[in-house]
Amino acid sequence: MKKNVLLAPGPTPVPPEALMDMALPIIHHREPEFKPIFEECLEGLKYLFQTERDVVILASSGTGAMEAAVTSFLRTGDKAIFVNGGKFGERWGKILKAYGCVPIEVKVEWGKAVDPAVIEKLLDEDPEIRAVYFQASETSTAVKHPAKEIAAITAKRPGVICVADAITATGVFDLPMDAWGLDIVVTGSQKALMLPPGLGFIASSEKADAFLETANIPHYYFDIKLEKKKLADKQTAWTPAVSLIVGLRKVLAMIKEEGLENVHKRTARFAKAAREGAKAIGLELFAPDSPSDALTAVKIPDGIDGLKVKKILRESYAVTVAGGQDEAKGKIVRLAHLGYAGTFDVITGLSALEMALADAGYEFEMGKGVAKAMEILREGA
Amino acid sequence: MKKNVLLAPGPTPVPPEALMDMALPIIHHREPEFKPIFEECLEGLKYLFQTERDVVILASSGTGAMEAAVTSFLRTGDKAIFVNGGKFGERWGKILKAYGCVPIEVKVEWGKAVDPAVIEKLLDEDPEIRAVYFQASETSTAVKHPAKEIAAITAKRPGVICVADAITATGVFDLPMDAWGLDIVVTGSQKALMLPPGLGFIASSEKADAFLETANIPHYYFDIKLEKKKLADKQTAWTPAVSLIVGLRKVLAMIKEEGLENVHKRTARFAKAAREGAKAIGLELFAPDSPSDALTAVKIPDGIDGLKVKKILRESYAVTVAGGQDEAKGKIVRLAHLGYAGTFDVITGLSALEMALADAGYEFEMGKGVAKAMEILREGA
Repeated sequence: MKKNVLLAPGPTPVPPEALMDMALPIIHHREPEFKPIFEECLEGLKYLFQTERDVVILASSGTGAMEAAVTSFLRTGDKAIFVNGGKFGERWGKILKAYGCVPIEVKVEWGKAVDPAVIEKLLDEDPEIRAVYFQASETSTAVKHPAKEIAAITAKRPGVICVADAITATGVFDLPMDAWGLDIVVTGSQKALMLPPGLGFIASSEKADAFLETANIPHYYFDIKLEKKKLADKQTAWTPAVSLIVGLRKVLAMIKEEGLENVHKRTARFAKAAREGAKAIGLELFAPDSPSDALTAVKIPDGIDGLKVKKILRESYAVTVAGGQDEAKGKIVRLAHLGYAGTFDVITGLSALEMALADAGYEFEMGKGVAKAMEILREGA
Repeated sequence: MKKNVLLAPGPTPVPPEALMDMALPIIHHREPEFKPIFEECLEGLKYLFQTERDVVILASSGTGAMEAAVTSFLRTGDKAIFVNGGKFGERWGKILKAYGCVPIEVKVEWGKAVDPAVIEKLLDEDPEIRAVYFQASETSTAVKHPAKEIAAITAKRPGVICVADAITATGVFDLPMDAWGLDIVVTGSQKALMLPPGLGFIASSEKADAFLETANIPHYYFDIKLEKKKLADKQTAWTPAVSLIVGLRKVLAMIKEEGLENVHKRTARFAKAAREGAKAIGLELFAPDSPSDALTAVKIPDGIDGLKVKKILRESYAVTVAGGQDEAKGKIVRLAHLGYAGTFDVITGLSALEMALADAGYEFEMGKGVAKAMEILREGA
């Protein structure tokens, strides 16, 4: 027997309480017993998104919610900026292109955050641009982009909305939708929400909802205008993923009980411990300047094969982390901190990384990373 | 305490074996432990669909798979027939329209099956028509449409594909995709597959796959061509609904063990017992000529309020059935037979219906319906 440890940035471990609730007999989504569950979820999502706006629940992965953030709001031929600093930024561009919009790329080096001034300049130069799509947290590079600053730029422009992919940001760090003026926020179930994949979420501001009225990109399954109408009756347009919504009630109650601010603090502490622990054994961070607390991406030292490290982690230590994608393939490993995670998940992740690096031939003083993390993880530290 | 009984045509009860499997710790979909599960599902789906073709698994409700059956295969402006004999037939028309196709409606009275000759005539008259969309089983009316005959008509025409919404047909009655020449078959998880909602399935013939190459309707999340490419590596394009796929392996194994033919026979026996039981107490069937074995729709007798009967079923007897939708609202109740159902679910459904009808003022000899059903349900009968 090898006890498996899942430390990848999604799917993340699901709390047993939620697993048990989802194992209860299924209920019917058009019958009265579903309504209070759904209502509780809607309230809990407002708390999580820090918004007074309705949050739409979709039966899809997060990518479906990203698609909805384009097709339900824009018009064919609309110009839209997208920040491309990683695999998910690139996805915004692909979705915009697929639906006949004119994507304007803001290319950002992998591992760096976008400079909001670049976005502002583009908006100044071209008043036809209607939206700015970006990642609040770019999972492929572990970068946190400046959501607050981007929202401040679009807030000044009545015809421009900002759209945050917050798939690894919501429930990870502070991202107050209403207070910052984020127009559309998108997330998924299998990250900080601690559920299996299969639910997408999308909330939109009053400003964004005006875009719903003029949108003309063909869409049917993902129809935010229709979903918002259905929410008035506590319903969804299509059959919802009932069991995941039953689990959602539980995890939202857990988040509420801990307090969103405490969830953020806890995650930040884990992330800081992982970053400092990695540095203590001579590793460089892939995103040193603006790291997302969702996960830590560490560079594999020169001369060491990153794919081999990931393989050793799995095969020798039964630890699943994420490797690098595309241009970062083989060059980084990524340890997740978001969601149902505790102090000893950080210790586990760092110690496994240390052991695997030693196995792969990296020379360093073993245990120094873990020791550094322990300093930070001590309660009261 | 009131013990709840779910007899609606989806979501249907989930077997405890599947619920327990789905309550196991989540696994990562890009890691080796997922692959054998996914492979087993793909094999099991081929058995279920009676096809040698790959079956694509989508993270969506069945409506998402219906959308994919339009947007991944057709071109903007394409003419397509859709059979509209109920709420789901109507949906084909709406999807076609939303994506800029030219829907050609074959209107069918609710409760009746389509006459294939009408479809053939339209195809003869207009060689530009490229597809025929219909329901193998129309859940809103409990009608079985003649899938075999429709497929025989399109099979003769190289440029026309037939597309069956089999959401309440797959795993209910015989629908051999390859043998009959069905080009696209779509289903969902929360019907005969006995799972919670959240998975859509779509299989396509070689003939249909040629349509993938010329399709130009904008699409991104639902991309069957991309999904088929990913299937070669036992992957999905986007994050799959992992826990539902873990459950899928279990239910597909259960179906395989019982044998698809036996599943069909069992469901047919239940449906026959329900139909004959209903008739024995003087009720008329809503779809007397071509009933789907997925469910039985009975007309509420004149002078009795159907909404009240449904309410009594819920509130007095804790039994959830489906009522009528749209034009059938208040006029019918629908009892499901598909999926994880046994002999005594039929007895429960009929006896509950008898008691509720008596409560609502219908005069008849109580117990005669149940007695008739028992005759049919006896093993060996």
